[in-house]
Amino acid sequence: MNFGFLLFPDVEELDFAGPWEIVAMWSKHCNGPQQRLLIGQTVNPLQCANGMLVTPHCSFADCPPLDYLLIPGGQGTRKEVNNRALLGFVRQQAANCRQVLSVCTGAFILQAAGLLANKQATTYWGSLDRLRQFPDVTVIEERFVRDGNIWTSAGVSAGIDLTLALIADQAGEEIAGKVQLGAEYYPLAVRYGIAHLAPEAPAYLRPGK
Amino acid sequence: MNFGFLLFPDVEELDFAGPWEIVAMWSKHCNGPQQRLLIGQTVNPLQCANGMLVTPHCSFADCPPLDYLLIPGGQGTRKEVNNRALLGFVRQQAANCRQVLSVCTGAFILQAAGLLANKQATTYWGSLDRLRQFPDVTVIEERFVRDGNIWTSAGVSAGIDLTLALIADQAGEEIAGKVQLGAEYYPLAVRYGIAHLAPEAPAYLRPGK
Repeated sequence: MNFGFLLFPDVEELDFAGPWEIVAMWSKHCNGPQQRLLIGQTVNPLQCANGMLVTPHCSFADCPPLDYLLIPGGQGTRKEVNNRALLGFVRQQAANCRQVLSVCTGAFILQAAGLLANKQATTYWGSLDRLRQFPDVTVIEERFVRDGNIWTSAGVSAGIDLTLALIADQAGEEIAGKVQLGAEYYPLAVRYGIAHLAPEAPAYLRPGK
Repeated sequence: MNFGFLLFPDVEELDFAGPWEIVAMWSKHCNGPQQRLLIGQTVNPLQCANGMLVTPHCSFADCPPLDYLLIPGGQGTRKEVNNRALLGFVRQQAANCRQVLSVCTGAFILQAAGLLANKQATTYWGSLDRLRQFPDVTVIEERFVRDGNIWTSAGVSAGIDLTLALIADQAGEEIAGKVQLGAEYYPLAVRYGIAHLAPEAPAYLRPGK
């Protein structure tokens, strides 16, 4: 099995680096996918949204058929939703993947590739209204949403929760627990200040949820 | 102000990518450090512990004086604790930094550079006993530990909690809350399976803590 992570200019760093780490723990310690690939349109180094420079392992042209494909978000998605080569790659790979995932505004790439038609999905809190403009997408304000083999998550750090949930589904809760311990992913429950109480904050943060 | 992140071969990806994202949100949206730098011994691309290829922005030789320095962990620390050039760089920069941070086994680099002498500190759960072997370090099994201007965190994902706590301290809780919303860092409270109940799991996970 292999697990591919799409890269493009101005991709948000944690959107892919969080899931990358979690999948690596799955691979190394718990019999997860043997191969993990960062995939670019070419193998030239890419500048991410916050300035990190990352070199893809393979290009669209030399990427093997993938078992899992994760699409991160970031400012770059605004441009990539019009990139026919990228959308063609996603569509072609997704047709044979076991599971396809997006983090944050990566959902807009799934949508542009036709993969969210008549699906429930979510995205970054600041882009929920923009996703609602597609009448065939049902937007759900949860940490992540699964609809068949399409998994979408809320913003940035939510990709970590998404990937652990995927592993629990695909390999079982015991394996997911070992991966969670491996990454020591037991976050503090702190919510600083009052930003999370703003009306535009996602519904899953509201008191009582 | 600027914020530097040390890189070295076999550095653990999320150890630096999590804090990198959080500091970027601080910079971009909340008047945080204007400059963020990934720093290598040279500017050649580095292979991280799980295979990600990252190119540093500057080398030890051309790095400006830093206001903040974060030392990630990973398998590579086993070698780097004997790298005199790296330890010299850390020691020299730390002397003038406002705050110095480590994530995971990055604590062993701080120790080797002499920065944990007579300090309280923590590290990855799997390396706590190894850190206890230094008699002048008091090991505390918390998510993160602050002692003066030295901040150390538990493993891998704990660097995100560490960096938010740093921002709350340096810029206030309201700013930390805006950064938290920016990164949508409101993790699920799920603990999968029973791995976190193992005797070697860190004390902060024990029931009642």
